Amino acid sequence: MRARDLAITCTTVTYDTPAAEVVRILARDDSAGLIVVDDAGRPALVLPATQVLRLAVPVYMQDDPVLARVVDEATADVFLGELGGRTVRECLPERAASPPVVEDDATVLEMAALMASSRVPLVAVVDARRVLRGVVTLHLLLDHVLGGDQ
Amino acid sequence: MRARDLAITCTTVTYDTPAAEVVRILARDDSAGLIVVDDAGRPALVLPATQVLRLAVPVYMQDDPVLARVVDEATADVFLGELGGRTVRECLPERAASPPVVEDDATVLEMAALMASSRVPLVAVVDARRVLRGVVTLHLLLDHVLGGDQ
Repeated sequence: MRARDLAITCTTVTYDTPAAEVVRILARDDSAGLIVVDDAGRPALVLPATQVLRLAVPVYMQDDPVLARVVDEATADVFLGELGGRTVRECLPERAASPPVVEDDATVLEMAALMASSRVPLVAVVDARRVLRGVVTLHLLLDHVLGGDQ
Repeated sequence: MRARDLAITCTTVTYDTPAAEVVRILARDDSAGLIVVDDAGRPALVLPATQVLRLAVPVYMQDDPVLARVVDEATADVFLGELGGRTVRECLPERAASPPVVEDDATVLEMAALMASSRVPLVAVVDARRVLRGVVTLHLLLDHVLGGDQ
């Protein structure tokens, strides 16, 4: 079993996608994260769900979550207000970690090792031209490995 | 809306649970992570799914995922073999980060800020005696916040 056999399609976004839209896609898809692709369809970045949340929660609240207590109710307006009309590019730190990407002939253990070391519960699967072919999530991988074991 | 209103029950484990069992529970429940409780039912540790994977994948493969390529197929035997009969306690690093825990009157934004800063997509919700009452996952939280917005 190789990466290409396990990979499923996923919603992708670009650096120009509004960040508020990214948060909405994550909520809608219940996905472990989203993949940012460049103009050629190559994965440029993998955004785990918690990093997407980092886009939406004001930085001073992340530094001290108790400060978030003063806002009694989080409406979509409050939550997404921080993002304004900014795009993914405008919300990201200047230097992002290289995305967890494997070629489509990667083994299951290779993907598991990459998820473990990157602490991101999904990997992007690309072909020989680095074009995105799909993603493999941690749960998809565990289901495969332990499928005959439960 | 407070933490107590959003919290759902979750499977808990203890420091004495076999690590292989923890991996199986994670696969079975498709959960974002698991909570380790002490004898009094207080959350001692939150294990995100990627950290559970770190228990199962040999360390030398995490350091260099390409080494994982030499093992062509990951069976449950190969995957869980690394764990042997070890317990959660025996697999963990000596110093673990303090778990993301909130009291049951925490606000939605407080939980979001904690998930964003800890990079763990769930928080444990405790009562005044620090006993675990349930968990709030990132997706549960986003569904609540954006429910009226999609």
